[in-house]
Amino acid sequence: MARPKPLSGFPEWLPAERILENHIVETLQRTFELHGFASVNTRAVEPISLLAKDGEIDKEIYAVSRLHGEGTADAKNPLGLHFDLTVPFARYVVENAGKLAFPFKRYQIQPVWRGERPQEGRFREFYQADIDVVGDGELPAHFEAELPLVMAEVFRKLSEIGVPPIRIQVNNRKLLEGFSRGIGLSDVQPVLRALDKIDKIGPDAVGRLLAETAGADAEQQRLCLALAQIEGDDVSFADEVRALGVSHPMLDEGLEALTALIATAQQRAPGVVVAQLKIARGLDYYTGTVYETLLQGHEDLGSVCSGGRYDSLASEGDRTYPGVGVSLGISRLLTRLVNHNLVTVSRSVPTAVLVAVADEGQRGLADAIASTLRSRGIPTDVSPSAAKFGKQIRFADRRGIPFVWFAEDADSHQVKDIRSGEQVAADPGSWTPPEADLKPLITAAG
Amino acid sequence: MARPKPLSGFPEWLPAERILENHIVETLQRTFELHGFASVNTRAVEPISLLAKDGEIDKEIYAVSRLHGEGTADAKNPLGLHFDLTVPFARYVVENAGKLAFPFKRYQIQPVWRGERPQEGRFREFYQADIDVVGDGELPAHFEAELPLVMAEVFRKLSEIGVPPIRIQVNNRKLLEGFSRGIGLSDVQPVLRALDKIDKIGPDAVGRLLAETAGADAEQQRLCLALAQIEGDDVSFADEVRALGVSHPMLDEGLEALTALIATAQQRAPGVVVAQLKIARGLDYYTGTVYETLLQGHEDLGSVCSGGRYDSLASEGDRTYPGVGVSLGISRLLTRLVNHNLVTVSRSVPTAVLVAVADEGQRGLADAIASTLRSRGIPTDVSPSAAKFGKQIRFADRRGIPFVWFAEDADSHQVKDIRSGEQVAADPGSWTPPEADLKPLITAAG
Repeated sequence: MARPKPLSGFPEWLPAERILENHIVETLQRTFELHGFASVNTRAVEPISLLAKDGEIDKEIYAVSRLHGEGTADAKNPLGLHFDLTVPFARYVVENAGKLAFPFKRYQIQPVWRGERPQEGRFREFYQADIDVVGDGELPAHFEAELPLVMAEVFRKLSEIGVPPIRIQVNNRKLLEGFSRGIGLSDVQPVLRALDKIDKIGPDAVGRLLAETAGADAEQQRLCLALAQIEGDDVSFADEVRALGVSHPMLDEGLEALTALIATAQQRAPGVVVAQLKIARGLDYYTGTVYETLLQGHEDLGSVCSGGRYDSLASEGDRTYPGVGVSLGISRLLTRLVNHNLVTVSRSVPTAVLVAVADEGQRGLADAIASTLRSRGIPTDVSPSAAKFGKQIRFADRRGIPFVWFAEDADSHQVKDIRSGEQVAADPGSWTPPEADLKPLITAAG
Repeated sequence: MARPKPLSGFPEWLPAERILENHIVETLQRTFELHGFASVNTRAVEPISLLAKDGEIDKEIYAVSRLHGEGTADAKNPLGLHFDLTVPFARYVVENAGKLAFPFKRYQIQPVWRGERPQEGRFREFYQADIDVVGDGELPAHFEAELPLVMAEVFRKLSEIGVPPIRIQVNNRKLLEGFSRGIGLSDVQPVLRALDKIDKIGPDAVGRLLAETAGADAEQQRLCLALAQIEGDDVSFADEVRALGVSHPMLDEGLEALTALIATAQQRAPGVVVAQLKIARGLDYYTGTVYETLLQGHEDLGSVCSGGRYDSLASEGDRTYPGVGVSLGISRLLTRLVNHNLVTVSRSVPTAVLVAVADEGQRGLADAIASTLRSRGIPTDVSPSAAKFGKQIRFADRRGIPFVWFAEDADSHQVKDIRSGEQVAADPGSWTPPEADLKPLITAAG
């Protein structure tokens, strides 16, 4: 073949970068499981009728069809690749409701696909890590505080390898809707859509948009923009909202919920979670708390962790399954870490020890040594050829493997730290590398 | 929505089954990394021109296109979902050759898609775990022995949870090709295709197929079928081949390679790897050793682990990257374990401890206890509501959570093993559950 070129929007990683990605995934899994979330995977495809039901989404969908499937039964039920993990999960919950225990907490780490124009941090295929809690008929509000705190814990652990700190911005759709109604704008969707654009187009343009799409007069625009500027990491933000003098029962309800969330977050993860009243989120299915998350110093990347409460995404007849979820963009985060060299990985292979092979007749001995080291949990490779030892050491050096093992015979072994050059007698049944050398070391870059 | 139905061929798992799947995946990852394999993921899509170049494959391909992408640049480079992990990996190697160190050992665990008719053990979307070693220009034969031994180690570990033992059947394409040429059948592909069907259609039908498609006369048919019946887990199988009296340099080469592999395997994993001369593998790109693997007692499932050596799958101009790979069918294996109840999982959540909530005013205390337990590596959940304790205990019981934690105040704690009913005073800073209760216990059923 000719040398293939990468496909724009479909990122792939070199082995050292995959070690970093796997570390992030393992940190997510471990943290989610410590919090009692069960793992779920869903199939990659859904009926397009399910994916496209939220109007504006359909232009981003990838359709899937058998290359020679025309005229078959498959053609009557067209499928598409899922564009997020929330819609498939809601379908999974309804499909399996009788076999699940509610409230059901699940995590899900999988790729999703969107036919968008690729740019930095925006892909056609990317990995997401989602946590959601779904109730049967009802879902207590305290879960809306728990989810961002779980993600805060993930990022606290990832800060050890150089991932920048985060700021989780929280708002409440009821607060926005109640405020909008309270100032006389009862068609709420255009207000949410306009506010959601404030960071992209600025307050003046949002004001004009409010006039055009929501029919807001000058005073209504002023109040909306004043609300959108309120932020704070303690409950005093609520006083600023009340000082605007707007009154509506739904505003009170949303304000109370957001205040409770901020109070809990301030106690459990001080400084990470802030009330940010301009946050609206584009997707229509949110009905309560909404989240966006910025990496500090990398705000241009956009949100790395978003979500919200949805009361009617999953339902079957009269039965509804309200939920709340947050989705972390693994590919977006990883791309920034790699492209900005924020993290260093000590080697490109899992291997801690390379067993040298003196001549091909000794390969059986080398294999036996490797087998003993592996049985003791030490990742070990055997030299692919009985080349000169200098070449075998270079094989290890190119990959960052720290130790090379030499055996003259079954009883006389030496192990060399090729970084320091230090070489000592060793027994494969008892020698152990320093803890820090057992796995590739991932650290914040200088 | 109406209750959705499963899509045939796209399996999904309930949480307890996912715990089993994750255990299998973690066992694979850990074993592969102990052997020095680096992790690679490739994108889900490839240009259809790359996927379809091997003639017979194209009818199984799922094409992917943007729902509203007609007439765009995307329409000129049609994409399909990969149907295996070998073709994408070969493309990845050529694309990134300048950044990889050879011989390059990688593992890859991802879903693949095939538009086949679904049946037990055969899906439209399924997970595979592949290991491959690829060289730059050359690849030593000892890797052809290493790969099945790595998979044998995986299954040795999985036998602890009730996965049946395996039998890895090995053959060599050169042996088959040399034999075919040696008996005067120089059009080798029809011979391989006919032999590959022997378990499905029986020797008589294979004989007729050899006559029809390869032009084999009665004696040529007899010799082919005699060869196909040879098997053995030690090197004596080679004598049986020689006793057929066929001579060809390529037969000698293949026989020597297979004998060396069986000798190594007999020493390192006695009884697991057998020479089985009827194995041919359908795919055209294999050029040397080929593998198929049966679960003992579950031979009807078909091969759970297949692969082989390929010398010309990856190349760029004059430069070739010969490789050898084996692919384990995770979904096929998991389906059998689940459908035949071969394995028991002790609970459906990762949670070891549920912290009870006496009343909502005490939720902060419960959260703090959970936080302490989690910081010590104990998966912990907090009761979703301050219901009666009996109801909170039932919440734990339904999910198989073994321990429930009660706190009257910050200083007076008790933990109850809800299986035995035993309840003791405990301190969240020091109490630890038995090792066996920390994670869901996975054991052989019955």
